[in-house]
Amino acid sequence: MRAGVAHVRLARPQAANAINPACARDLRAVMLAIEFDDQVKAVCVTAEGPVFCAGGDLREFDAAGDGFPRLASDMLVDYHGAIYKMNRTPKPFVAGVRGAAGGAGLSMVSAFDLVVRGESSKFTMAYARAGVAPDGTSSYFLARHIGLRRMLDLTLTNRVTGHELDTIDQVLKCYAAVTADQAAAALNIRLAYEGQSA
Amino acid sequence: MRAGVAHVRLARPQAANAINPACARDLRAVMLAIEFDDQVKAVCVTAEGPVFCAGGDLREFDAAGDGFPRLASDMLVDYHGAIYKMNRTPKPFVAGVRGAAGGAGLSMVSAFDLVVRGESSKFTMAYARAGVAPDGTSSYFLARHIGLRRMLDLTLTNRVTGHELDTIDQVLKCYAAVTADQAAAALNIRLAYEGQSA
Amino acid sequence: MRAGVAHVRLARPQAANAINPACARDLRAVMLAIEFDDQVKAVCVTAEGPVFCAGGDLREFDAAGDGFPRLASDMLVDYHGAIYKMNRTPKPFVAGVRGAAGGAGLSMVSAFDLVVRGESSKFTMAYARAGVAPDGTSSYFLARHIGLRRMLDLTLTNRVTGHELDTIDQVLKCYAAVTADQAAAALNIRLAYEGQSA
Repeated sequence: MRAGVAHVRLARPQAANAINPACARDLRAVMLAIEFDDQVKAVCVTAEGPVFCAGGDLREFDAAGDGFPRLASDMLVDYHGAIYKMNRTPKPFVAGVRGAAGGAGLSMVSAFDLVVRGESSKFTMAYARAGVAPDGTSSYFLARHIGLRRMLDLTLTNRVTGHELDTIDQVLKCYAAVTADQAAAALNIRLAYEGQSA
Repeated sequence: MRAGVAHVRLARPQAANAINPACARDLRAVMLAIEFDDQVKAVCVTAEGPVFCAGGDLREFDAAGDGFPRLASDMLVDYHGAIYKMNRTPKPFVAGVRGAAGGAGLSMVSAFDLVVRGESSKFTMAYARAGVAPDGTSSYFLARHIGLRRMLDLTLTNRVTGHELDTIDQVLKCYAAVTADQAAAALNIRLAYEGQSA
Repeated sequence: MRAGVAHVRLARPQAANAINPACARDLRAVMLAIEFDDQVKAVCVTAEGPVFCAGGDLREFDAAGDGFPRLASDMLVDYHGAIYKMNRTPKPFVAGVRGAAGGAGLSMVSAFDLVVRGESSKFTMAYARAGVAPDGTSSYFLARHIGLRRMLDLTLTNRVTGHELDTIDQVLKCYAAVTADQAAAALNIRLAYEGQSA
């Protein structure tokens, strides 16, 4: 934490920061700590490595074999709990996104209050391709950010979107970001500062 | 039907595919059949002739004389039932739209999951000009697709919108359509294929 | 009133049309009169002077000293009552906006059915900078007009937006306005006329 801004970093770059049960559990614990830490005025979320978040950890899901439905059901309680806290806690959550965010990764991106997007970032829903319905609030938040039909487009076609879609990230145009991480940190410090002066 | 895709075609080009009681009844029956046909994975809706749908069949409404309120009330049960089924049935509905869609025609366009739009397509609400409030879910879905104020703009001014309004149809830009019909069919086949592999 | 259009004019240019208790009370009374006047088919709202509305009257709030919470609480009953009536009354409310609209001023702008914007207009939320949460329905309506995330962006960053943000005011592009006031009046007359012919 610096200057009232908690910095959360997805730190499994070797697995493209994919969400597995341990990661979902950690995320939930971090969000709980943030909720009850009065020193935290704003939260900045970034990721290590070239991929922001590859979505669910399909390798670990496959390895679970018949145990997958139980693993998924349990993991989603933590994952949804973490995202729920992000939205219930009255502190701004800002993401700095570099590289790809797919499936649960795009869902997480959709749940932040603000997103600062790097040149390399790209997004895809990827759920229908894996034969599953979207989790992680993307169907809710994307519809509210970019409209119902564009959410349906992304959900049904699994298109990869980046610069050509300036609708997810219109917010980002306002910031002349050197890197997404720097911009997100800068933005958070400003938000935290304004929160303190209130 | 081909490859899991049901093809529905508005086929009264001599009346610009305007909605009359018989057409609304047919549409409702078709949607019911689609709902309960497990072979249907996705639905493609197109229209014959140069006009997609001119809205309510004002000529038939006029001919009904004093019987119009009863005719309209009865017809709307079928029409709204058809559109309700489109949205409750968990199968993607994709329209390929060429030419004009006005009034109830634009309402139908607003209710599809995805729309592939041809160069010739143009839209207008047209309700206020005829002295009636919008039916057919356009006030609901357009607000969710393009925002509340732009829906109000279209509803209050009856502006004809086409290419200059790239907000209704931003989805369409992704597809290099030869014709809207071909593109809608291609998209549906892809959706149906993905549904089967799930 | 002319031709079924009621013309409401914010008329405290010496205070940049800032909202104080007297102004909120007047606004509520005007909206009540409009609601029950069957001659009024549409409403046109403009402002005197170079600023549309500077928001709450901070000078008067400061002067209230310890009495501020009570003053604010009472004033907001009138202000929210006025905005509630604007939205419950089934008559179109159209604003012609020149110059800045900030805080409660932007909230008012967000609550109109249509907005005709002059070249000089610019918008800012300004609430977080003053240490208060948004009032006046902006958090509700802006999210519905421009999407949830862009509303959050404006709310959290207090950015001043104008031409570079063509999302609040996409509606306006349709009208080749000589001045915002003229355009709003013209639009209202058209709306009133269509209402009468219905």
